[in-house]
Amino acid sequence: MNAVTFVIIGASGDLATHKIVPALFALFIRRLLPEDFRVFGFCRTKMTDEVFRERLAMSLTSRCKNETNCSLYVGEFLARCHASSGAYDDVDAYLDLYARMAAVETAPEKRCRMFYMAIPPTVFSPVTRALGESGLVRCGDAEHWSRVVVEKPFGRDRETSDQLVAEMAHVFLESETFRIDHYLAKELVQNLLVLRLANPLFEPVWNAGAVERVDIVWKESKSLQGRAGYFDTFGIVRDVMQNHLLQILALIAIEPPGAPTATAIRDAKVRLLKAIRPLTPADVVFAQYDEGVHPVTQEMIPGYRDEPGVAKDSRTPTYASVRLAINTPRWQGVPFTVTAGKGMDESLTEVRIVFRKSGTPLFPDAAHNQLILRVQPDEAITHVLNVKTPGLSNALHQLPLNLLYKEHLTESLPDAYERLLLDVLNGDRALFIRADELAAAWDIFTPLLHACEANPETPLARYPFGAANVAE
Amino acid sequence: MNAVTFVIIGASGDLATHKIVPALFALFIRRLLPEDFRVFGFCRTKMTDEVFRERLAMSLTSRCKNETNCSLYVGEFLARCHASSGAYDDVDAYLDLYARMAAVETAPEKRCRMFYMAIPPTVFSPVTRALGESGLVRCGDAEHWSRVVVEKPFGRDRETSDQLVAEMAHVFLESETFRIDHYLAKELVQNLLVLRLANPLFEPVWNAGAVERVDIVWKESKSLQGRAGYFDTFGIVRDVMQNHLLQILALIAIEPPGAPTATAIRDAKVRLLKAIRPLTPADVVFAQYDEGVHPVTQEMIPGYRDEPGVAKDSRTPTYASVRLAINTPRWQGVPFTVTAGKGMDESLTEVRIVFRKSGTPLFPDAAHNQLILRVQPDEAITHVLNVKTPGLSNALHQLPLNLLYKEHLTESLPDAYERLLLDVLNGDRALFIRADELAAAWDIFTPLLHACEANPETPLARYPFGAANVAE
Repeated sequence: MNAVTFVIIGASGDLATHKIVPALFALFIRRLLPEDFRVFGFCRTKMTDEVFRERLAMSLTSRCKNETNCSLYVGEFLARCHASSGAYDDVDAYLDLYARMAAVETAPEKRCRMFYMAIPPTVFSPVTRALGESGLVRCGDAEHWSRVVVEKPFGRDRETSDQLVAEMAHVFLESETFRIDHYLAKELVQNLLVLRLANPLFEPVWNAGAVERVDIVWKESKSLQGRAGYFDTFGIVRDVMQNHLLQILALIAIEPPGAPTATAIRDAKVRLLKAIRPLTPADVVFAQYDEGVHPVTQEMIPGYRDEPGVAKDSRTPTYASVRLAINTPRWQGVPFTVTAGKGMDESLTEVRIVFRKSGTPLFPDAAHNQLILRVQPDEAITHVLNVKTPGLSNALHQLPLNLLYKEHLTESLPDAYERLLLDVLNGDRALFIRADELAAAWDIFTPLLHACEANPETPLARYPFGAANVAE
Repeated sequence: MNAVTFVIIGASGDLATHKIVPALFALFIRRLLPEDFRVFGFCRTKMTDEVFRERLAMSLTSRCKNETNCSLYVGEFLARCHASSGAYDDVDAYLDLYARMAAVETAPEKRCRMFYMAIPPTVFSPVTRALGESGLVRCGDAEHWSRVVVEKPFGRDRETSDQLVAEMAHVFLESETFRIDHYLAKELVQNLLVLRLANPLFEPVWNAGAVERVDIVWKESKSLQGRAGYFDTFGIVRDVMQNHLLQILALIAIEPPGAPTATAIRDAKVRLLKAIRPLTPADVVFAQYDEGVHPVTQEMIPGYRDEPGVAKDSRTPTYASVRLAINTPRWQGVPFTVTAGKGMDESLTEVRIVFRKSGTPLFPDAAHNQLILRVQPDEAITHVLNVKTPGLSNALHQLPLNLLYKEHLTESLPDAYERLLLDVLNGDRALFIRADELAAAWDIFTPLLHACEANPETPLARYPFGAANVAE
């Protein structure tokens, strides 16, 4: 593998310190990084290499505390970590970064570079522009590549998203742009196509003839603590629905790709997204949480409008439930309901495929079969079947066939970022969002968001923090 | 419910003492017996009521030892147990039994009577004849019914089976004759039609298009201790294959019955059995065990031919594996392999439905899906699926979805005899073998048995006691 320099823009933030660098470190321990790698942290705060390394040390140590050579690994890794600083839009700051990189890199002209944008979305464009002008990005060099990794939010709607895509395209080719949706790297989400297509039992019933409805549910019981100001400018639809949950839906609903390539899979996803009817206010239930009791800590949690950074009259939904219709022969008439709520009774992400009832006259009381995919926490696949009530009764009864991942794992599953960074390194694009895919995803939600934001009368139901459901 | 008298012929034997009467007792505790019932034990040994009750007491107590009112239940039940004795073919002995019954029964002319043949097959006919002549059987009275319960072996081949059926038919109508196959009352066997037909996922793949083969495996690790002489006159095919395992096969393979009635289910079974090509010696592997180590106790177990009651040159198979071909559109070309062996490494009964591999070009390495139904011990349904290897690998991996019955039961499953006696009482015939079904089952095995028994050169492989497999 080529020598690589990882450049983390926004290196002093939580994402860099607690997710990105630790994920690189985990790959390092697994010997999945190139022999010759360097990590450069760039941020506005002035920071020496030593201070950067100190900030990282604890976070890295916690990743390997069960390994015998943990401190050795941490020492080796930190010795390759460096810091540089300056204003995000200052070309000179990147030239300075370049000089520092060249001072420690072997053969700088032959290295690959991965730029990770661990920064607020407002500075994606200025940073990209300055990077481009500084000459750090070797655009179009397939061997000594430059790749950029960027994470949602990708704009606020179709228009602003297109604008961001266009601005980044001045500096990076589409093939060099890796738009992360970290839900795609979750074990059960990665497993969706395998489950559907490598198991002959499922494909025959993976259609409107056999499926009555599909429910995708995302809940979070954490309070917004400190993130409310950021959240308030986006709302639940942009936060998890237009990206994470729509991606899950796409993998459940796409036609089988003809080949196991990133291109074929992403082509199939784009076709699927384009077959979804854009949403209107009639397809959605919005709600916002009030004060309530935290389901675990039993603390009283203030209502959303009382969170710091949130306007007292904010109409930003913290909960949404949308019903999507997919206009393909496979899914004609099958409702896909996607529900997401913050301030709920539990934290989970789950897909429920509810099958039509058996038409047999023998068992008129047979309940719906269900296939439940629990994405988080406690990854599991559950198939709820009708069986005879065990014992002397002949009545039917529902019992689950279970596959609990933790019963089959000797170590915990790798963090999604490990997988994603490894894929960027290997140029494997299957788990990243292509520009046309992003556009198609926005096309589904943009009309709804615009209509609701333009209309202060849009219904907004209320629920107490910790609620299990929101009444429609 | 009508008052009932249970007449157990062969009351001093193990079947009566340890299975039949305890099963009646269990139904009594569950309040599933009629208010007014009597149990009459009939046997050759002279036995007073007291002696009969003493013999039963321990066996009954062990059934309810966890109940608070156990001794009360045992006492109440035993008070209704009576004994009578005489030669099996002596009409006078049954007249005497009748007199004893009439002495304790309320309204003898209005009672139902269940005759349970817990006797060796050699006396089925003489007992039936004497019962008939004694006038104890009120043939054809639907309200105050007389029913006979009889258990395998039903003859040795088609001819002797037909003869037995004809002889019993002089005394009992076919609708009054309950031929037990106690495997049909096992939870997972009873569950087979529910699993197939009440779960829409299975019916679409329950055919030759999706199933590559079906394996039904029966193994026993017990030594024959004392039963070898009996076993030697029958062999493994007559002992478990022509009955228990063929019944399991039938329930897996039948066409969905049009109605949930005993008639429709048994009609479908007869049609299925008639569609199975009769076996020839080319379809079978026979084997017999030699001395070997018991897999659990580690004791040395003598070879089959050294068991008491077995001839030193016995050619009776203790193991057989047959390949059945079912000539229906659903199962064209799918081999059903039925394997049964005594003196093996473990005791289990299991059905494995092995599905064809997925044809998708995306996952050429996908392994066979399997649906495994464990009938005994530890009832379970397992579905082996292809999933992505958890973690950073993209390779496929097989993991099971499991339904372990014991995880869902608050008490142990009732014994098969409980279910069967309750069904006899209720006149529910679904779990009993109809005469035409018995004939069709014999038609599959009779040519094979006759051909092999006529030919001393029939290959007979050897295996050590405790073997996991027999090399073909």
